[in-house]
Amino acid sequence: MLYFESDYTEGAHPAVLRRLTETNLVTVKSYGADEFSAAAERKIRAACNAPQADVVFLTGGTQTNLVVISALLRSHEGVIAAETGHINAHEAGAIEYTGHKVLTLPEHEGKLDAAEVGAYCRAFYADETREHMVFPGMVYISHPTEYGTLYTKAELAALFDVCREYGMTLYMDGARLGYGLMSDQSDLTLPDIAALCDVFYIGGTKVGALCGEAVVFPNGKPLHFLTTVKQHGALLAKGRVVGVQFDALFTDGLYFKISRHAVEAANALKAVFLEKGYELFLDSPTNQQFVILPNEVLARLKRDVAFSVWQPLDAHRTVTRFVTSWATDPASITQVSQLL
Amino acid sequence: MLYFESDYTEGAHPAVLRRLTETNLVTVKSYGADEFSAAAERKIRAACNAPQADVVFLTGGTQTNLVVISALLRSHEGVIAAETGHINAHEAGAIEYTGHKVLTLPEHEGKLDAAEVGAYCRAFYADETREHMVFPGMVYISHPTEYGTLYTKAELAALFDVCREYGMTLYMDGARLGYGLMSDQSDLTLPDIAALCDVFYIGGTKVGALCGEAVVFPNGKPLHFLTTVKQHGALLAKGRVVGVQFDALFTDGLYFKISRHAVEAANALKAVFLEKGYELFLDSPTNQQFVILPNEVLARLKRDVAFSVWQPLDAHRTVTRFVTSWATDPASITQVSQLL
Amino acid sequence: MLYFESDYTEGAHPAVLRRLTETNLVTVKSYGADEFSAAAERKIRAACNAPQADVVFLTGGTQTNLVVISALLRSHEGVIAAETGHINAHEAGAIEYTGHKVLTLPEHEGKLDAAEVGAYCRAFYADETREHMVFPGMVYISHPTEYGTLYTKAELAALFDVCREYGMTLYMDGARLGYGLMSDQSDLTLPDIAALCDVFYIGGTKVGALCGEAVVFPNGKPLHFLTTVKQHGALLAKGRVVGVQFDALFTDGLYFKISRHAVEAANALKAVFLEKGYELFLDSPTNQQFVILPNEVLARLKRDVAFSVWQPLDAHRTVTRFVTSWATDPASITQVSQLL
Amino acid sequence: MLYFESDYTEGAHPAVLRRLTETNLVTVKSYGADEFSAAAERKIRAACNAPQADVVFLTGGTQTNLVVISALLRSHEGVIAAETGHINAHEAGAIEYTGHKVLTLPEHEGKLDAAEVGAYCRAFYADETREHMVFPGMVYISHPTEYGTLYTKAELAALFDVCREYGMTLYMDGARLGYGLMSDQSDLTLPDIAALCDVFYIGGTKVGALCGEAVVFPNGKPLHFLTTVKQHGALLAKGRVVGVQFDALFTDGLYFKISRHAVEAANALKAVFLEKGYELFLDSPTNQQFVILPNEVLARLKRDVAFSVWQPLDAHRTVTRFVTSWATDPASITQVSQLL
Repeated sequence: MLYFESDYTEGAHPAVLRRLTETNLVTVKSYGADEFSAAAERKIRAACNAPQADVVFLTGGTQTNLVVISALLRSHEGVIAAETGHINAHEAGAIEYTGHKVLTLPEHEGKLDAAEVGAYCRAFYADETREHMVFPGMVYISHPTEYGTLYTKAELAALFDVCREYGMTLYMDGARLGYGLMSDQSDLTLPDIAALCDVFYIGGTKVGALCGEAVVFPNGKPLHFLTTVKQHGALLAKGRVVGVQFDALFTDGLYFKISRHAVEAANALKAVFLEKGYELFLDSPTNQQFVILPNEVLARLKRDVAFSVWQPLDAHRTVTRFVTSWATDPASITQVSQLL
Repeated sequence: MLYFESDYTEGAHPAVLRRLTETNLVTVKSYGADEFSAAAERKIRAACNAPQADVVFLTGGTQTNLVVISALLRSHEGVIAAETGHINAHEAGAIEYTGHKVLTLPEHEGKLDAAEVGAYCRAFYADETREHMVFPGMVYISHPTEYGTLYTKAELAALFDVCREYGMTLYMDGARLGYGLMSDQSDLTLPDIAALCDVFYIGGTKVGALCGEAVVFPNGKPLHFLTTVKQHGALLAKGRVVGVQFDALFTDGLYFKISRHAVEAANALKAVFLEKGYELFLDSPTNQQFVILPNEVLARLKRDVAFSVWQPLDAHRTVTRFVTSWATDPASITQVSQLL
Repeated sequence: MLYFESDYTEGAHPAVLRRLTETNLVTVKSYGADEFSAAAERKIRAACNAPQADVVFLTGGTQTNLVVISALLRSHEGVIAAETGHINAHEAGAIEYTGHKVLTLPEHEGKLDAAEVGAYCRAFYADETREHMVFPGMVYISHPTEYGTLYTKAELAALFDVCREYGMTLYMDGARLGYGLMSDQSDLTLPDIAALCDVFYIGGTKVGALCGEAVVFPNGKPLHFLTTVKQHGALLAKGRVVGVQFDALFTDGLYFKISRHAVEAANALKAVFLEKGYELFLDSPTNQQFVILPNEVLARLKRDVAFSVWQPLDAHRTVTRFVTSWATDPASITQVSQLL
Repeated sequence: MLYFESDYTEGAHPAVLRRLTETNLVTVKSYGADEFSAAAERKIRAACNAPQADVVFLTGGTQTNLVVISALLRSHEGVIAAETGHINAHEAGAIEYTGHKVLTLPEHEGKLDAAEVGAYCRAFYADETREHMVFPGMVYISHPTEYGTLYTKAELAALFDVCREYGMTLYMDGARLGYGLMSDQSDLTLPDIAALCDVFYIGGTKVGALCGEAVVFPNGKPLHFLTTVKQHGALLAKGRVVGVQFDALFTDGLYFKISRHAVEAANALKAVFLEKGYELFLDSPTNQQFVILPNEVLARLKRDVAFSVWQPLDAHRTVTRFVTSWATDPASITQVSQLL
């Protein structure tokens, strides 16, 4: 079987696991006060060119979203997201469970449009009944998006500006951030993101870690954030578990190297499909590829290749998703080619 | 430095880490549907003699408590716990965050008394204003307790009976369950616990895992529990991470062997203190020892030994806590002896 | 000034206030256990032809919505509503505050389409990732809708059927129910509604009461519902306050008579606008009329008439809302006519 | 039957109902923006000598407690209350439903002791594990307490000081505030309370209104408080309903006169019991009297008098509660005397 189902079907990148093994018997303080977490924080600050940043390590994406969003919103506020935003569609109502509404706007290949966000806020503040409505307190974006697409620096800056204008925080869900940063089409660097977001996270689970996300607050974390983390059951007793992994990922550029590997594999896979005459649903520049397959091809391919059925396109064709990762074997792409 | 501060200051037991390494590149299904989690579930069912049990793997203790308690309580219900219960004292209000009150009763060396629970419920249902109060819907106990003490089989059976009488579920927090099961004083086995609790968890974080707890529902889990887990941000994309670890812990009795190691170390440490003429605050039969130290001894010992200050006893003496684990080096106990 | 701004700008219908005065010094049990509430419940059961129904009196519409919806949904479930549904648009996130997502579908003159609800559920249960999503647990409709429109009996029956098919409860927000029942276009009676809804409320605040809504559970209320009501701060110590009012409203058909008065006034007002050559935004058969006014007419009329600006239609015209009520003086409609 | 069961078994004081009737057909703005609410706010500001105060009208006590407490606490904070505090004992977990823990301290005739609050906070901030615990963010007191007792000015000032020292807000539940202010033993005035509390409410439901409480924020209300009120379903469309009642209550000192009436009746009732040789459980200076009755007297009296059984005292005697109100007929006290 060839695996392109998701970027979390293997364990950790071997170097990450090696680092866990090397440090395993060192006795350290718990709850994230360990030296490995501190080292990882230093390295992430440096990579972000954000010397004042606080970095907090959490375990998974939905957990990170709910902890960060509920910590930053006040009770009368909600969070703006694209309709396809992960928090709106695939987190089982985790944000609403914390008491906050997800305010949806149309998506454009998975992205929010800053002008539409501005128009929404303008209309909101012009509405005389606004005190009976949920105030927009935050803008949530994912980068890459659920469709693998990327914000340009200009687009991100425009969102940042509209957030400043209407007193909202800008939060980037970076579950696959590495795959975005290393895309050929990316014009955003980590320091750019740290300068243009109030908070974002660098995804580990989908980029080489067993589990773990690094939340970056470029201008410092909220008061008593550790207590908030604990309250959500998100504080690991052995904080080292995530700290060590990010220490490894941010040593010698590992995070970027393995992300680049996945992007190159995705590019190669895309080339294979195009060459064989298949169409793309949209042109993703990152590790998720959305390919339109005739249903009979889909059925045949399923026998040897694991991938996702995204949505039906019409009676004969289906949108499918193929995902590469740090673990993708380049040989498997050649094999897909032979199967088409 | 000699370390007795807690049972979560090292990584994982080497056999656990080895198993993570061996299985690392196997491609599996995500969100807990992997073969390693399935194997771990089978082994835990067998160890519990509970063939119908559902086993769900979560990441940490507070997370497990809040997910399980909120999943099982209805909105008008709260959970009875000892005043010293972890959910009441040291979980940053995680249970209340889910909307439920912790109803406290007196503790007896950390334990709830079944007769007092019964009396509480009797008074509750006799109170004409009870509909204005929080209904007792669950009894929470920890075993071992926060003081390292153990319920006897008779005590657990009595709690089970009072729960049946008043329509409550009985939930055991087994963060340190292994250390309880392997205590010289334990008359409870895993099958006993599975027979006498509606739900309990087998702690991994404090008993040899990097992270992870195995929640056991002897009679099956609640409807759509996976969605509830996801909603709390507690669903690992790589569910294998905890599954593999419990697979290792429940292979060849590893969980029990390493727990026994810690209990023996604790027994040896207790003997050292008693021999040197120190008193115990209470006589714990598990891996946490509560020793009364004169303040000057405490100050001196702190230079070479890491342990916790529990509470002042009087002007001259302090209650301290020394914790052993699977990682405790027996030689360190001899060294403590020499320092006293 | 002529008032058409809303149906809650006066106090209570005089007969309601008279009944409050007559009964004022009678000493009764508190928290809804009084004889007036019991009488009101009996009369409402009779009017609904639902002898097994439980009737619970609450204070306002948003309160009723949040109490009922959170009481009936389980934690993994959300509530389907039209985009324009009051719970989605104008309740300040009250439903989300209770932890539940509002799942929005398109509106058709304010109404949900049963076929679309069915398609949504079918797609949901066909989605392999549905356990990561919010389960549809209830359908919320308002009748009349926010646009004053009405469901036909066939439409309500179709919604009822789709709810049965997918295990959802059907809840009708009847804030303006009287104005719907007494519309010329209504083919739904109270007994029909009681037969086709799992729960609904008969609005009092907008139909002649000082405050108060009567929640009807045709097949009985949830277990310990009074405790749930109390928990939301929705239990009046003097339950009589709402009970007496509904007793008056359901004596000698008062509720229906005053509702009919408002509908006739609305019909007359609509006729005035049409006669003067103005267009309707949509043809509402109840007490809310949505009229398209040229902006200069709007500005002129505002000097003498209170009404709501609903939304701009184009550069020159605006959608406005005129609302009649039990308190509308027919003479005021003639006066509007003279102003146009 | 003679009624001493509670102070909410009749409707409104006749002058209050009269004012509702007089103003009934005046057309006003909704949601509390009406002229009657504004007048009531002005009168309350004057009575409190707090010209900057914001006054918000809500419907009931539990509702007020949950709205105010959840609006002022941050997510990592809880509220300190006496064990017998209404929010801890008799509000069905309403505070916990909003996500906040009630932190209980011992009661002294229903009161909190400022020294104990200080000691609690000192211990909290000295605890190295405090970040795993709920931060004390507010102190809740009721005045009069659940036992009818009163804080002295010195006691209130001491609580105020400890709140300043530890960054907590001081909140007074004044469900029966009038009966406290008009007690012979009160040395606190409304201006004193406004100077020494961050927020408090003046109870209407138990002091002559149909329903309603006036929340006073001497230094201004929280940002977007109306939205918070709406979110909890606590915003009346006809805000006038409570506004008019408080306008009446604070006209010509009505609130104080009717409170004094109840206190005098309570004093007379207490004198009757003492004269007949019965003991008090505690000496309440307000409208609730706690009398110890032999069980046979209790049984006999129950035939003609409505009162509450508070708690058993011993095998032969019971603590009972007799409550007077603005509605108590002095003749009924003479009748009780004849029955003893």
